[in-house]
Amino acid sequence: MKAAQTGTREEIIRKGAELIHARGFNATGLKQVLEAALVPKGSFYFYFKSKEDFGLAVIEYFRDSIETTAGRFLEDDGTPPLSRLSRFFDGYLDIFRKMNFSRGCPIGNLMQEMSDLNEAFRVNITEVYSGLGKKIELLLAEARNRGDLSGFTDPVQLSQFILNAWEGAIMQMKLTKDPEALVIFKKIVFERLLK
Amino acid sequence: MKAAQTGTREEIIRKGAELIHARGFNATGLKQVLEAALVPKGSFYFYFKSKEDFGLAVIEYFRDSIETTAGRFLEDDGTPPLSRLSRFFDGYLDIFRKMNFSRGCPIGNLMQEMSDLNEAFRVNITEVYSGLGKKIELLLAEARNRGDLSGFTDPVQLSQFILNAWEGAIMQMKLTKDPEALVIFKKIVFERLLK
Repeated sequence: MKAAQTGTREEIIRKGAELIHARGFNATGLKQVLEAALVPKGSFYFYFKSKEDFGLAVIEYFRDSIETTAGRFLEDDGTPPLSRLSRFFDGYLDIFRKMNFSRGCPIGNLMQEMSDLNEAFRVNITEVYSGLGKKIELLLAEARNRGDLSGFTDPVQLSQFILNAWEGAIMQMKLTKDPEALVIFKKIVFERLLK
Repeated sequence: MKAAQTGTREEIIRKGAELIHARGFNATGLKQVLEAALVPKGSFYFYFKSKEDFGLAVIEYFRDSIETTAGRFLEDDGTPPLSRLSRFFDGYLDIFRKMNFSRGCPIGNLMQEMSDLNEAFRVNITEVYSGLGKKIELLLAEARNRGDLSGFTDPVQLSQFILNAWEGAIMQMKLTKDPEALVIFKKIVFERLLK
């Protein structure tokens, strides 16, 4: 593709990601996406084979954006591992606050909406979700090896539990439009499980 | 409404609930629902004012069905409160297994999909979700008063945390199509939080 065409494709994905994050995949029409991206109607199939193909590109976009953001909060800059994890949850709380506690986690949303509807979505979302779980698992293993965790901790199971509990709390935040569920989540995880 | 008409309305809600549980609200067409309920096309607006009106009736149906099922697992039949809670999670695991770990929680699904799209849905889903949280809260308060919980436990916060963590685990179950997330959820909740 020529540079301008690549730019247009990226713009469709970026605007599409925003709409899908806000409304879900099925409630987002291609017409809306093209209008938001200022791309002429009818040119969609020049850039994507199908709505599915487009959706998979949006999942990739979410993966990259989570990699960047989560990577920034979790990166090893000399801060102890559990403080980095705390920084990760606080950082996302700020992001959610800026969205008025709407939208929630784009991967959680798609997991809920699409796992039973599209196998390619399910497989690609699993990959993104496991990737995030793995990052938390490595932090917990590091914390355990440093002796920062006193109780018995299986980093594999605990990271999965914590990630799911966080997704559930994000879901309640999206429902109640306030941070309470996330505040309680962090309190119980750090006071009862990560000590 | 005459009895036959009431029966038809109920049948549309029942079939609609099944389809919405399996596919989500936006991906479920009214045509599909009427076909499944064996009701002539075009008669939908005889029974419901709008698709929203129908959706709210389906939320009521889910509420009643959760009341019945959760009530059965949690009811005070002389079993200690934490064992009733354990029975609740095991009971739902059986139900999820029968659905091949698909579909997940109908209220969790709609919470995720509809919280930002429809205010009446959001309000009614909040009511159902708080109702379930309240049931767990009362069990934890009972357990604490009996001295079954040694650590500090605020039943309000802990019940909310546990319910959200369960919803998150159900979401991962729906993604991975196996019970692992629910097994880990139960293990960590009972071994680390409810002791």
